[in-house]
Amino acid sequence: VAFTLAELEEVLRARRQELPGNSYTARLLARGRAKIAQKLGEEAVETVIEAVAGDKDKLAQESADLLYHLLVLWADCGVAPADVWADLARRQGKSGIEEKKERKS
Amino acid sequence: VAFTLAELEEVLRARRQELPGNSYTARLLARGRAKIAQKLGEEAVETVIEAVAGDKDKLAQESADLLYHLLVLWADCGVAPADVWADLARRQGKSGIEEKKERKS
Amino acid sequence: VAFTLAELEEVLRARRQELPGNSYTARLLARGRAKIAQKLGEEAVETVIEAVAGDKDKLAQESADLLYHLLVLWADCGVAPADVWADLARRQGKSGIEEKKERKS
Amino acid sequence: VAFTLAELEEVLRARRQELPGNSYTARLLARGRAKIAQKLGEEAVETVIEAVAGDKDKLAQESADLLYHLLVLWADCGVAPADVWADLARRQGKSGIEEKKERKS
Repeated sequence: VAFTLAELEEVLRARRQELPGNSYTARLLARGRAKIAQKLGEEAVETVIEAVAGDKDKLAQESADLLYHLLVLWADCGVAPADVWADLARRQGKSGIEEKKERKS
Repeated sequence: VAFTLAELEEVLRARRQELPGNSYTARLLARGRAKIAQKLGEEAVETVIEAVAGDKDKLAQESADLLYHLLVLWADCGVAPADVWADLARRQGKSGIEEKKERKS
Repeated sequence: VAFTLAELEEVLRARRQELPGNSYTARLLARGRAKIAQKLGEEAVETVIEAVAGDKDKLAQESADLLYHLLVLWADCGVAPADVWADLARRQGKSGIEEKKERKS
Repeated sequence: VAFTLAELEEVLRARRQELPGNSYTARLLARGRAKIAQKLGEEAVETVIEAVAGDKDKLAQESADLLYHLLVLWADCGVAPADVWADLARRQGKSGIEEKKERKS
């Protein structure tokens, strides 16, 4: 897959510098953090519903919407994708038992 | 960033073939789709809260948890990351105006 | 307070028998269970955000929206408020310690 | 139904003055608003899942958990149930058309 989330994040960052009004992303950023977070939460709800309903195509679509709004939220909050990858790598490096212990404590 | 979600998805797929009991992922998959979707929804709620509360480090951590559970949900439902990237690319290729029109209809 | 949720539920049930098209409730019921559940999830996200943001008036408004959509969901699924009250009463009747034990098991 | 949410709210308020440590409610209040809001969001996710999965009994149980955590959130934020009832009554008093207009604007 040539298209990574890191690349997408660059696209997003570029878009942010465009004029407000000509992009959905710019308009969303202009509405503020609470609204972006709200949209993320809404897309998560839709993702949950399509997963439980068992519709694979809609799950892919809702997942894309969820990821998109997550990236916008990162951009708004100044979170670098690298920070998230680091957390993911840490999680992957742990054995299941260690992870479970940690979750319980 | 050398670490992509596509790579992570491979790690996940490999883990799935491990013995149940020695990994959090295997145990989660064993609990079924509704439980995985529930965990995804819970992580989304935590992501929303940390964003609104303005805690950047916790937002990165919760985002990692959210992405992780999203990948597990894809694996369980048979969604290929490539399908999601395709939906994301389609979304990025559209102008903001087209996108807005579509959202309204 | 003379206005109880049980009374509201009656209002809702009455509305359901009205002609579709002249009430938001009737239209929502016509869109099906997944859509009603989605709206409930969205209102919950907004409730969470207003609580964390500390806006008391908006929290009351979002709570009303949340309760309203919960009642519509009950009506759609055939859940009687009495069943929910019974579960609430059971929960209230337990000591905190018993409750905690149960949650852990 | 003799058991109203207003009554439950009184029970809750009374519990709040109990010693911390001997009730789930007191412990939850002690963990702070973000944690209470998080629990509310989690219960909403479970409610959504049980509704879509079509399990009536579990929907009633999750609804009770959702309402319970909503009441705890109101108590923590100083929202009076009467304020929420007032918002609900306003909503019920509107015709569907007015309501829809308002939602769109």
